[in-house]
Order: sequence, then structure tokens, then C-alpha cells
Amino acid sequence: MKTLTVDLGDRSYPIFIDSGLLNNESVWGSYIKKKGNVVIVTNTTVCQWYLNPLESAVSRLGYKVSSCILPDGEQYKNLDSFNAIMTFLLEHNCGRDTTLIALGGGVIGDLTGFAAASFQRGVDFIQVPTTLLSHVDSSVGGKTGINHPLGKNMIGAFYQPQAVVIDLDCLKTLPERELAAGMAEVIKYGIIWDADFFSYLEKNTPSVWNLDNEVVSEVVYRCCSIKASVVHEDEKEGGLRAILNLGHTFGHAIETYKGYGVWLHGEAVAAGIVMASHVALGRGSISTEEFERIRDLLIANRLPVSKPEEMNTDDFLKLMVHDKKTLNGRIRYVIPDCLGRASVKDDLTQSEISAAIEA
Amino acid sequence: MKTLTVDLGDRSYPIFIDSGLLNNESVWGSYIKKKGNVVIVTNTTVCQWYLNPLESAVSRLGYKVSSCILPDGEQYKNLDSFNAIMTFLLEHNCGRDTTLIALGGGVIGDLTGFAAASFQRGVDFIQVPTTLLSHVDSSVGGKTGINHPLGKNMIGAFYQPQAVVIDLDCLKTLPERELAAGMAEVIKYGIIWDADFFSYLEKNTPSVWNLDNEVVSEVVYRCCSIKASVVHEDEKEGGLRAILNLGHTFGHAIETYKGYGVWLHGEAVAAGIVMASHVALGRGSISTEEFERIRDLLIANRLPVSKPEEMNTDDFLKLMVHDKKTLNGRIRYVIPDCLGRASVKDDLTQSEISAAIEA
Repeated sequence: MKTLTVDLGDRSYPIFIDSGLLNNESVWGSYIKKKGNVVIVTNTTVCQWYLNPLESAVSRLGYKVSSCILPDGEQYKNLDSFNAIMTFLLEHNCGRDTTLIALGGGVIGDLTGFAAASFQRGVDFIQVPTTLLSHVDSSVGGKTGINHPLGKNMIGAFYQPQAVVIDLDCLKTLPERELAAGMAEVIKYGIIWDADFFSYLEKNTPSVWNLDNEVVSEVVYRCCSIKASVVHEDEKEGGLRAILNLGHTFGHAIETYKGYGVWLHGEAVAAGIVMASHVALGRGSISTEEFERIRDLLIANRLPVSKPEEMNTDDFLKLMVHDKKTLNGRIRYVIPDCLGRASVKDDLTQSEISAAIEA
Repeated sequence: MKTLTVDLGDRSYPIFIDSGLLNNESVWGSYIKKKGNVVIVTNTTVCQWYLNPLESAVSRLGYKVSSCILPDGEQYKNLDSFNAIMTFLLEHNCGRDTTLIALGGGVIGDLTGFAAASFQRGVDFIQVPTTLLSHVDSSVGGKTGINHPLGKNMIGAFYQPQAVVIDLDCLKTLPERELAAGMAEVIKYGIIWDADFFSYLEKNTPSVWNLDNEVVSEVVYRCCSIKASVVHEDEKEGGLRAILNLGHTFGHAIETYKGYGVWLHGEAVAAGIVMASHVALGRGSISTEEFERIRDLLIANRLPVSKPEEMNTDDFLKLMVHDKKTLNGRIRYVIPDCLGRASVKDDLTQSEISAAIEA
């Protein structure tokens, strides 16, 4: 088992990475409040495979467990689902000593985390991410939240879990399209932080797709480590942390335009990464060869590398102005400085932006 | 001007108490982020009197100000109003550098505070409480939140404002019933913390009702000081802070039963204080004379001192089990240990509880 500690003072917590962890009682016993209720929040897809083993493991420890099962999809990461969790908790007489377990991908993790942050002004929660994207993205950082019809993740809280439990066996049931979406964020870490890791991915993409346990656990561990370093420096996204949003300003616009859930988050980010890299190419920050390596690695991972045909530059600009990185009306973009380093820029010209979008 | 600092490390903030503060530009300039938007959240009642002066004072400093006006009443302290604020902020292109100003009573303060805590995972806010209850209650402590049909304040966050601005002139338009409701919480501070202050209130109740500036500012200052001491010791309600809920376990049951807004919060708390004092009387913690002083001071402040006729003990018990102070299924009550001191008890017998409710 690989273990990593996210170091945030009195809000520090461990991440456990291995196969077979769902059934591992010793993991659960240490992180759930004695005598409290346990509520597993999951969705209709994930529950078929993983709810029974998790319920059994936690029940064997003597906890009273109940499960709140929500519909599956980004379009349900909203205030209605949030309220459904609150109602479930109150109908089950849950108190402040309740522990929520988020069993699912990023949608379940973000939604459950915000529910935990807000129920009775804060109860404990444990993340059990079941997709590659959530392994490498939502495991670290404490960003929780839900979407609003006018913008993604506009409502939420910074709230840290007690522990994150990554059972790599969950990837066996993950649809290919979602594995690809996870790889978009994995590749992002290489571009913004670690050129060696980027090369490692170029060599090992086939092993990832074969779910080679050693390669996958190394990939997840390295992504979580990078994110933990960034978040440790900047928990509340005052500065550095924003680089984790490479591809996200463009990507969120695609997701909002198409309607949540039509393009997967990782797919939209992949197209956004190519756009941001196009700006870097135009500024001479990366070479043509590097630009092509980025695009090729995304393609090798079966990801889209350009915008939806029907969207134009105006559609992007109108939506990007709502991005949380917008400051005093200026849209801010994360742009690579070289392969392995990136920073936030707010001086993009209209022609750079539209060239990147239309490329 | 009386000033008090609530000492919470890097989340410390000042409370300013005086008449005429709404128009005082110097107060506003120091606590609003430069270049950010300002959004005043208020209700249809308060806005008639106080919105114009506040908008003008803030506008004169060069800020772009807009106002989100909600319907008035506890029944609107809900998820719909929360969502209305989110929509307003997004439609006005508000970013993370926005400052929310809560202009109103406890409902507006709690709701706006939770909106500030949750919008883009947290923006600044300033409290401008306009009722006596909110002066002495919501000004200190950072408890924000909204109601759920199954329980009061079940959804929320601990989130501290940048500053609290108490303009005592606002009491001039406050209905008598609401002044009385505020006095219930004022009297509570005397019972749980400061017997001298309780005596001061016995002497000065007529001056409070005449809105004598010196007496009212002393009352508000002392209540805020007591609450600040308690919150400083126990920000997240691990222990001591719970004593601030004297009368609230019984009181919340009344509010929920009658439907939010039918009994004012302070009215329900007043009846709850008498019930808790009845338990203390039965245990010999307070004398018959002290019990009568408590009841008489509440009556002198035009407050109810017994339950709504149609509620019975079962109605109370069914609702109190949802109280946030309930731990492992045991309902916890704040009970006076003497006049000037109180603590949380979870060993009340069925007959003590029903005697207190029916008395």
C-alpha cells in the first residue's frame, strides 16, 4: 500500500492507494467517529459494484450504516442533490457525530464534501474516489462544491476530509471514456510541474490502459504528490494553486455551453490544454515539437484536442467571464512557461485567444 | 463609538457600536476589498429605511454597489433564498473580490453569511445587524446558516465577517415585538454568565424600552463582550459555547411546530428559558425567588413565559431529537447552575422534561 500525507496543519489527512482497500476494515476503523452514524453517499452506477463490500466492511466494525443513492451524472451536481442529502441525513436522525463517506467519482466527492461542510455547519467525511479523474484530482485539495446553471462549481467550500481511500480495483469497471478523461488531468500534472513525469507517461500510456497495477499506482501517487505540494503552499488558492487549472478556463466554457455531462470534464480540459498550449507556442514558451508532444499524448489517450465545432470565440468569451479566476473583469488563463512549468496570465490579447480557440 | 474586537487569530474582526454609523464612510472604506463589487443583501422591510443611506455612503467611496432585496421573514431563511443570492451574484458578474453586506436582522445575517461562505468557496462579508436580537446574537460567533423543513439552522458554516457595524439608530423603526424578542437573548446572557448584568437589566428595562442611547449601547456592548469571551474559548462549539443555547432546545421545537416566523425566535427562546429554569428550580440549582426574578424580567419585557397551548410534551420530544446538540440520540439541554452560570446536561428525566414543558 502506498500512503501519502497531505500536510495542512490540524487539517492534515492521509491518502491510501492500493487494490482491495474497500474490504480492508483496518482502514475504516481509524477514521470514523466512535458511536456516530455512517452515511455512504453514492450513485446508481457505482452502487452496483462497490456499495455492498463497503457497507459490509463498515458494518462489521459495529457502525450503523445507511446509504443515500443519487442519480449518476454531472447534471445532478446541483442544489437539488445537495438538498436531497440534507433531507436524508435529517430523516435518519443524523447528528454532528455523523461521518459521510463519498463513494464515487468527482461529482459524488464534490457534492458530498460540500454536504459534509454544511450539514450542521460541518461533519466528518471520507473520500472513496472510484474514477481515475477523482483519484488524481479530488483526492487532494479540499475543494468541494456544486454547479449553478450560470457556472460550474460556483457554490462550495474549502473543506478537508479525514482520509482518502483509493481502491485501484475500482478502475476495472470504469468506462474507457472516463479513463481517458482521467488521463487528461494526469497529463496536466506533467505539463505544469514535472517534465520527467510527462516522459514517463509517454512511455507508459499502454500500461495505464492495461491497468497494470504498478504503473497505475505510480501514476496516481505522483499526481497526488504534485497536487499535495501545490496545495500545501496555497490551500485557499491565493496564487500558485491556480496553475492546477491549466485548460480549465477554456474547458469550463465548453462544459457549460454543451450542458453539464455532455462533454466529460476531462475531455473539455484536454481541449482546453491544447488551447493554452497554443498560446504558449505563439509566445515562444514551448517549441513546436513540445506542442506536438502534448497534443499527441492527449490523442494517444483517446482525448479530444479541439473545440466542439458549433462553438465560436464569442461563445467562449461570454462564458469565461464567469470563471472564478476572473479578477476585476479580466479573464485569467493558466499558460505553460515551458514543458514542466506554468503560470497565470491575464494579458492575453483578443487575437491570441481566438487563434487558440479556432486552431 | 464603542469598539470591541472578537479575538479569533487571523479571523479576528471588530464590532463598532454607535448611532449614525450607516452614513459613516470611514467605517466602510477600511473593510471592503479595493476594486471589488459590493452587494448589499437586505429585505423588503429594512430596505425602506436603511438601504439608501448605506448605498450612498459606500458609493461615495467609489465602489460599484448593487442590492439584492429578499422577502422579509424567517420562512425565507431557506435554500431558495440562498440560491436567489447566488443567481444575483452571478448575473452581476461578481468575482471572488466581491464583498457582501448583510443589512437586516438575524435572518438576513445568517443567510448572507452562508452565501458569503459558499459563493465561489468564500468571499468577504460585513454584518450590519438592524434588530436588537441580531445586535447581541449574530454579531459574534460566525454561525451562518439556513433552515431545512426538518430543522432550524441545519445547513450552514462557521464563517467570520470582516467587521460588524451596529448603528443603534436602526432600533427606532423596530416593532415592539421584535425589541422584546431581542431582550430574551439579552436576559439570557445575564442568566448564563453575569448576575450583575441581570440586576442591571432589572433596573434599566424601562430605559431600554425608551431607547436611551447610553443604556442601549451598554447593553449591546456587554452582550457582545460576553459572547466574544465564550466564542474565543470555543469557536466551533466543542463545549462551552453550547451554553449560549439556553432556552433554544425547547425554543426551536416551538418554532418548528408553529412554522418558522409565527413565533419570533426570541419569543420561543423566552418560553424555553422558563422551561430550563424550571428544571434548575426542581434540582435546587436556583431558588424560587430566582426563578421568579427570571420569569418576571421576561414578563417585564413583554415576552411569553409558557408553551403554545396546543403543543404537548410528545410534540416537543419528537422535534427536539433533531436538535444539533443531540449526541448519540441523547437530547442535551442547557440548564442554569445558579443565576449567572449554566452548563449542558444530558441526564434530564422524562418527568423533569414534561413538568418543565407543562408548567
